[in-house]
Amino acid sequence: MQKRIIIDAMGGDNAPLEILKGTYLAQKEYGIAPVLVGNDKEIQKCIKDNNIALENVKIVNSNSVITMHDDAKAVLKEKADSSMGIGFKLLNEGEGDAFVSAGNTGCVTVGSTLITKRIKGVKRPAIASVMPSAKRPFLLMDCGANAECRAEFLYQFGKMGSLYMQKIMKVENPRVALANNGEESTKGTSTVKEAYKLMQNAPYNFVGNIEGRQIPFGDADVVVADGFTGNLILKTYEGVAKVLMNGIKNAFMKNTLSKISYLGVKSGIDDMKKQFDYKEYGGAVMLGVKKPVIKSHGSADARTFKNAIKQAIWFLDNNLISSIENEFSINTQEE
Amino acid sequence: MQKRIIIDAMGGDNAPLEILKGTYLAQKEYGIAPVLVGNDKEIQKCIKDNNIALENVKIVNSNSVITMHDDAKAVLKEKADSSMGIGFKLLNEGEGDAFVSAGNTGCVTVGSTLITKRIKGVKRPAIASVMPSAKRPFLLMDCGANAECRAEFLYQFGKMGSLYMQKIMKVENPRVALANNGEESTKGTSTVKEAYKLMQNAPYNFVGNIEGRQIPFGDADVVVADGFTGNLILKTYEGVAKVLMNGIKNAFMKNTLSKISYLGVKSGIDDMKKQFDYKEYGGAVMLGVKKPVIKSHGSADARTFKNAIKQAIWFLDNNLISSIENEFSINTQEE
Repeated sequence: MQKRIIIDAMGGDNAPLEILKGTYLAQKEYGIAPVLVGNDKEIQKCIKDNNIALENVKIVNSNSVITMHDDAKAVLKEKADSSMGIGFKLLNEGEGDAFVSAGNTGCVTVGSTLITKRIKGVKRPAIASVMPSAKRPFLLMDCGANAECRAEFLYQFGKMGSLYMQKIMKVENPRVALANNGEESTKGTSTVKEAYKLMQNAPYNFVGNIEGRQIPFGDADVVVADGFTGNLILKTYEGVAKVLMNGIKNAFMKNTLSKISYLGVKSGIDDMKKQFDYKEYGGAVMLGVKKPVIKSHGSADARTFKNAIKQAIWFLDNNLISSIENEFSINTQEE
Repeated sequence: MQKRIIIDAMGGDNAPLEILKGTYLAQKEYGIAPVLVGNDKEIQKCIKDNNIALENVKIVNSNSVITMHDDAKAVLKEKADSSMGIGFKLLNEGEGDAFVSAGNTGCVTVGSTLITKRIKGVKRPAIASVMPSAKRPFLLMDCGANAECRAEFLYQFGKMGSLYMQKIMKVENPRVALANNGEESTKGTSTVKEAYKLMQNAPYNFVGNIEGRQIPFGDADVVVADGFTGNLILKTYEGVAKVLMNGIKNAFMKNTLSKISYLGVKSGIDDMKKQFDYKEYGGAVMLGVKKPVIKSHGSADARTFKNAIKQAIWFLDNNLISSIENEFSINTQEE
């Protein structure tokens, strides 16, 4: 059966055009049945003006949009009738199998937690991002849903992250590490030290602390942090990569000789760009809620948004939510 | 008068050879009078075997060395007679004007705080690192001295960091920002939110929160964080830069054509490498203690260590410690 993916057509900097183009790419590749939420007329006009060959589209009208400046709780209150608010409502009512939005992260977090709701036993859902590394991709979580975390939240992030890497990325026995300011078990804040102890007895493959320097080398498959730290790691990572990629570009644009030289090294540079490509995974996933919610980058272009929809497909194809539900219901002591 | 710089000749992965070579380079450039602390025979042999043309050297013998595995408090207790322990003691006794070590960071922090001691009014000394950015260098602090910080510590880090950037880096009215998981004043942990309020009324140029993505673009001159977060930012920064620089190298080494192409783009790549050169500042400085203490990278080579000594010279030439003392004694309410 076709997967019904609810799309926040108005969320993100490049909505609705890039969102609709991305949805089209996903339909072509995965045969999804999209449920577009947003301003009916604007969506229809955008599809027509740009000849976007979407088929079997269902549009659910909404006349308000959540902006980057809205408070996280707006999705429940004054902006409950926004494209994102209605998207969450439709997901809850079974009008779609998954929800994808490039809108306000705070609102996606609140909507996931309070409308879609937590899986039984999960203390706090978290934002998980698939990140590039020198080896293979790894999962960083939490990337911003919970600025402050208790040790047991971090412990649970490890469990959900490990399941994600097993089920979705097909990594056997994923190495789960705790982001810390040193390798030794005595390092870090009191919360992190307590989490370390819990994780030593975890049912997953806890490999100890990881320092920032080792994260991009791919020394762990899951890097666990509170949402404050995780967000700073994620964005510092993106920022440094962006600055250096700009630097490479400038080096090649310096003069005629450097421009010519680019041709000789292009394939190697392309390999590197591909390895460090943030667009490949399209965004972050909410782990710990009852249905698949994917948060695409605010600046998502069509390809990035298509890849965010791909994440939703993977969630569904691999029954990730059932796996998390099972894992957390077996371990009843954690509820 | 020649500056007497106390050197931990045994600290770091490449001691004593690179330390001694770096000290020689610093002597040649700045005319320092080095006080080398470490195993007398080993130092003499290393100088002789490698023809290091150091002059007017004073060697203070020590037969024990602090390793990377020693507890931070070892410098006060069982390893008080180590090269680092004796180095701090000499600094305290006025046998030198500054102390430079590439040894164990925890021990340097404890030695600075409890042997060299805090400047009156400073709640917590912090490790400050000069970092490269797309624009000009900026200061990140704390990089690991205080895993947990109260809001007022963060407030004070801004004050010390601002003075450093003014006095040492000659930046007028340095922009001080608070590392956070969002730009809005409502973002972050409760401590960070409280710090934000304090910093809004600070006597320095507080420019608000900075997200990880903007840090490498050089959007602030001082980035304030607790030592846990700051350390993860610092090391993630270094790690991503390292992985991408390796990627560039591999791209150029891919085949004969790419190797030839390197020649055409070398000058541009060299500009970029220079801009992102961690060795240029040689390491981190302890801010908030009564005398200049510089912590060079554990993996410091001669040039890096020479630049760490340069930091000590800058401290002394610009009377940074007096400036911090004055600033903190004026604002008596902070004591």
